[in-house]
Amino acid sequence: MLASGSPARLRLLRAAGIEPEVVVSHVDEAAVSASDAATLCATLAEAKAVAVAANIDTGAGAALVLGCDSALAFDGQVLGKPADAYEAERQWQRMAGRTGVLHTGHCLISTVTAKRFGEVSSTRVRFGQPTATELAAYISSGEPLRVAGAFTIDGLGGPFVDGIDGDPGTVIGLSLPALRRLLARHDVSITALWNSP
Amino acid sequence: MLASGSPARLRLLRAAGIEPEVVVSHVDEAAVSASDAATLCATLAEAKAVAVAANIDTGAGAALVLGCDSALAFDGQVLGKPADAYEAERQWQRMAGRTGVLHTGHCLISTVTAKRFGEVSSTRVRFGQPTATELAAYISSGEPLRVAGAFTIDGLGGPFVDGIDGDPGTVIGLSLPALRRLLARHDVSITALWNSP
Repeated sequence: MLASGSPARLRLLRAAGIEPEVVVSHVDEAAVSASDAATLCATLAEAKAVAVAANIDTGAGAALVLGCDSALAFDGQVLGKPADAYEAERQWQRMAGRTGVLHTGHCLISTVTAKRFGEVSSTRVRFGQPTATELAAYISSGEPLRVAGAFTIDGLGGPFVDGIDGDPGTVIGLSLPALRRLLARHDVSITALWNSP
Repeated sequence: MLASGSPARLRLLRAAGIEPEVVVSHVDEAAVSASDAATLCATLAEAKAVAVAANIDTGAGAALVLGCDSALAFDGQVLGKPADAYEAERQWQRMAGRTGVLHTGHCLISTVTAKRFGEVSSTRVRFGQPTATELAAYISSGEPLRVAGAFTIDGLGGPFVDGIDGDPGTVIGLSLPALRRLLARHDVSITALWNSP
């Protein structure tokens, strides 16, 4: 079960052969603060998973609930989704040609054992240098307003990210190697979750 | 126009807002040999683009033809698609826990100006260590038999790749930053190719 409304996370899981039930947690993200991006992501991922796990009808059988949260650490700041087009543009003007670190927190709860395990995955991102025309077109598309750090690597933003150092799923919002490790701690192999062909 | 039958390349372009016409080139890849993976990819990408560009009805108007080819350089060898399940498994047993470099060659031809520009993009890949059970399930899925290097980061293989250093599109088979640069050399902005919303 995926405790996230992010279409990018759902696409990523589906591409990896996993079809989760999606339940959005309605955790008030603005109410949570933390000194650094990694701690913030870990806290919010856990809050989302806990909120959804608490509301599951236990008569429904075994479930694993995954909460995820992402934020960009850049220049000593924690950047979530930009508030508006102006903020997205200003952010890109600072980021262009430089690097940041995208952190994604994961928390996986079993409703059967009530055990919960967490992992934060971090990937360095090297931003490219879109021209003024490209940046204007990108902001107009609306995409940067919907994502942490105002960029994607799996959407319209892809051509404007020169490279990453780490796991690409982390940048999209869900690390598959981290999920594999968290599942193993619950004694589940990720291949057991693959849809039958 | 995409001179490639790869579903992963088409998915990647579509996710980036570009809907190409797909024309498969039928270049005999086995007939081409090269001393290193980067040269091989550049040669095959150009051969594919040239073959498709030559067959375009010039009455059909302006077209940009993109050819791509990928190969994994590992342990001094050039690895394309594995011949069978046995080879895929043997390859993974060698790759597990180690690193290789995925090279993708790109060639972009304009049928109007007849200019052609090429770029090879290279990304380091750090392979994880699937358990024997996971590896058997992965080989059985058939996915590794269809791709260069016997792995993906955008499919079932994602959990078994710990990280990359470079552009993720390169590993999937088409680098969006490289495409952006090649388009710019043809005086086309990549944002001009985005589907209208």
